[in-house]
Amino acid sequence: MDVYISGVGMTKFGRFKDPLENMMAEAASIALKDAQVERVDAIYLGVMNAEEFVGDSNFAALLADTLGLTGIPSTRVETASSTGAGAFEAAFYAVASGHMKQVLVLAGEKMTHLSTAKATRILSEVIDRSERRYGVTMPALAAMIAQSYGHEFSLSPLKLEDILSQVAIKNHSNGSLNPYAQFRKMITKEDYLKSQVVAFPLRLYDCAPITDGASAIILTSQPTSIKVSGIGHATDTSAVRHRASFTSFNSTKEAAQKAYVMAQLNPSDIQFAEVHDAFTLFEIIGTEDLGFFKPGEGWRALEEGKTHLRGSLPINPSGGLKARGHPVGASGLAQLVEIVYQMRGEAGRERQLEKTEIGLAQSIGGLGNNNLVTILERGDRKRIIGEGWSPDYQPDILAPKKRRTSQLLEGIGKLKTFTTLYATPEGFRSPLTLALIETESGEVVMACNPDVRSPKTLKMEKKVYLKTREGLYVFEKLTLWCRLKRWLKLHQNDNKGTEFTKR
Amino acid sequence: MDVYISGVGMTKFGRFKDPLENMMAEAASIALKDAQVERVDAIYLGVMNAEEFVGDSNFAALLADTLGLTGIPSTRVETASSTGAGAFEAAFYAVASGHMKQVLVLAGEKMTHLSTAKATRILSEVIDRSERRYGVTMPALAAMIAQSYGHEFSLSPLKLEDILSQVAIKNHSNGSLNPYAQFRKMITKEDYLKSQVVAFPLRLYDCAPITDGASAIILTSQPTSIKVSGIGHATDTSAVRHRASFTSFNSTKEAAQKAYVMAQLNPSDIQFAEVHDAFTLFEIIGTEDLGFFKPGEGWRALEEGKTHLRGSLPINPSGGLKARGHPVGASGLAQLVEIVYQMRGEAGRERQLEKTEIGLAQSIGGLGNNNLVTILERGDRKRIIGEGWSPDYQPDILAPKKRRTSQLLEGIGKLKTFTTLYATPEGFRSPLTLALIETESGEVVMACNPDVRSPKTLKMEKKVYLKTREGLYVFEKLTLWCRLKRWLKLHQNDNKGTEFTKR
Repeated sequence: MDVYISGVGMTKFGRFKDPLENMMAEAASIALKDAQVERVDAIYLGVMNAEEFVGDSNFAALLADTLGLTGIPSTRVETASSTGAGAFEAAFYAVASGHMKQVLVLAGEKMTHLSTAKATRILSEVIDRSERRYGVTMPALAAMIAQSYGHEFSLSPLKLEDILSQVAIKNHSNGSLNPYAQFRKMITKEDYLKSQVVAFPLRLYDCAPITDGASAIILTSQPTSIKVSGIGHATDTSAVRHRASFTSFNSTKEAAQKAYVMAQLNPSDIQFAEVHDAFTLFEIIGTEDLGFFKPGEGWRALEEGKTHLRGSLPINPSGGLKARGHPVGASGLAQLVEIVYQMRGEAGRERQLEKTEIGLAQSIGGLGNNNLVTILERGDRKRIIGEGWSPDYQPDILAPKKRRTSQLLEGIGKLKTFTTLYATPEGFRSPLTLALIETESGEVVMACNPDVRSPKTLKMEKKVYLKTREGLYVFEKLTLWCRLKRWLKLHQNDNKGTEFTKR
Repeated sequence: MDVYISGVGMTKFGRFKDPLENMMAEAASIALKDAQVERVDAIYLGVMNAEEFVGDSNFAALLADTLGLTGIPSTRVETASSTGAGAFEAAFYAVASGHMKQVLVLAGEKMTHLSTAKATRILSEVIDRSERRYGVTMPALAAMIAQSYGHEFSLSPLKLEDILSQVAIKNHSNGSLNPYAQFRKMITKEDYLKSQVVAFPLRLYDCAPITDGASAIILTSQPTSIKVSGIGHATDTSAVRHRASFTSFNSTKEAAQKAYVMAQLNPSDIQFAEVHDAFTLFEIIGTEDLGFFKPGEGWRALEEGKTHLRGSLPINPSGGLKARGHPVGASGLAQLVEIVYQMRGEAGRERQLEKTEIGLAQSIGGLGNNNLVTILERGDRKRIIGEGWSPDYQPDILAPKKRRTSQLLEGIGKLKTFTTLYATPEGFRSPLTLALIETESGEVVMACNPDVRSPKTLKMEKKVYLKTREGLYVFEKLTLWCRLKRWLKLHQNDNKGTEFTKR
């Protein structure tokens, strides 16, 4: 059964005093009014972590009651930072099954009442435990991916910095036109450069802010002007180090492929998109993973203005997570609300795009391991599904790396990527240098070096010495002394026939 | 599209050292093997509160990876303590929509590694904030419901105690035959009476234990021997005091009605059931709410042996939450696993029921405000859906009480129900007497009295004096002095024309 959108709503995103349930009720009531319905058959509620952000569980029941819809079935759905899109997907199947006629999807998060350190700690819980215990945060992982991207596509540090700043400048410019955005100010390259480094090479202006807000959509089996034409969803390895690529996300590519196949559309059919720019580079990678541009060429499209508001393929007309704000549970659904506003010509004169028959939203859960891609299409668009369509999107899905048992090893390794984290989580000393290191047996491990105070002294692909301390990998520069130690150990363990010393 | 079950699996429930993801992987691999499939189209993951119990979010992605199903879409679903049933429902719609052919539903919780006080605090977060701040716990609310039940159906305290003990004795007896159960020992009435009072009148043996465990089911669109024939889901007021009845659950009744209509079956068609006995009385109320017995007569059916393993309508052949254990996220799905074992004749000689063509599971979320009812039926059962069926289940769904703005009032009220809580949450002094009190304007409020050391001095429907202290309602016995204070206040406030003094 086909599924349509009959109403949308959202609160302004930002820093608010209202309790989460009130913000969500506000978004819901706008969407219900927009759809001209008073009751629904079910509620699908997206909140990423009400338990720790606001101290409540059983939030689905609370919301049904708060909305005056006491009795209505209410289900909470969570897929980390793509939760809003995840709730939309679950609701989509409920309507598509024919068992539900009208469903409210409601997503929100309240975060700004906590200290940044506490919010960062809660957000870090999406990271695999084995990496989190090194003090790794989301910006730290994103920074390591940025380093990899720069290296793989031979961008100088200055060039990489310039590209990242351009994403921030573009999205702040779009956000300045969006009445729902948390940040409505334009920024300049100078502002960008003045902002503090959070995790080298990422600055504060590379990271989506901490935000409160809610968004809502009504799904219906009755045809309307907006049809849900494709949904794709995919996961990836829990630990980032187990992935074959640090410059693209399998989970986006697999999700996109499924969405394109369901919609019988190709990347070239998409006229505009909301892309999960929790970190500036993720927008660039997103546009590549979605098949809009070739790997390593997304930044060129940005430079050429293609992804600008008046470009040929506008990306994040809303201002994106960067400028609209990122209430983690709400963002995935807010992207779809923006697409609907654009499709209906309700985005406001300055922000309104011209071609809005087909829009796409891509949402990232965790560090790229629970992603969704959703395609909306004008309901009155004349086409015979499948006619003349042949898939031209064949992404390169890379098999995860082989994993070894987690026995700690010592020896020489190669620096695959690294960052120096300045905003460390509670309990970790700042700055903290973190790295992904490939051992001689081909395994990639997370490691830290609390003594490296500046990332400038490190180089990609350089050999380092890997040792263990208190159950963690610690790396150090490969000095003559290290080489000697290694040589000595080799000879100590000759009979073991391995270059690594098991602890 | 019809939906069938092709595989089930669960771990033994109890107290284990393994991390949650390993227990869930064990349950999943049993179910996948049982269904003879290696891959699925999606995973629906039920965990109630991994954030606080085990300190992880993004659990859906973690599990896909742990299972070696990296890439497969994975969605976490949560409906408080009915989470396992909620995940099953979401997965059901995914398959019913035709978009998914084969789906893994996987549910689990790990709780025993925390202190009872901490686990109780986390479990209490399902309770409405306005009631939780009085120190109210789940056993406290269940105890107040038990007091109401005894009062409404004129059961003496001794009689009520006897009925409750019978549920515990029956379920421990069933559990003793279940290799998956946490408790495999029979208990006697003497054992029951020896167990400590947790919240008067409920004893330790009235409460489901704290448990670790996981359960899994494979849903498929391919016909198998077990068909999902009905699912119903309903919520209720977030705060218990807003409900019109304290002796039945609207949410069970509404969910049951939907499930019976979808399955085109009536309560009399059900041959056995798993009923959410988080507290012994909830099994009795459940069998009434589901239409098996009339309100106030569930206990008679138990006394007559009807709900015993060899009775005419066996309830909780697994041992129920009471004896099998209650890993909160897993229980709703484990009930369905038990039903499948019974339907396939795999419950083991001693526990195997005779008539198992149609089984029902009822799962309670929170304190009865996010409940699900699921009906499974033998896939080869010959019947023409709808033929000759007319609904004979017309439950009395009671509208919630009118709510007033939460301005604190002082004055005389009537004791609707009460409990003395001995296992108080951190920060509250023990014992703590709690009550639901009806004010003269008909509003029901939660109130506490830290000076009442024993519940025996209180009586249902008795008048009490309600005052406010530090933003909370406190009640005290209506002495002459209270009456005088009230009379004085009345005359002070003559011009306000109200019996209550606004603070």
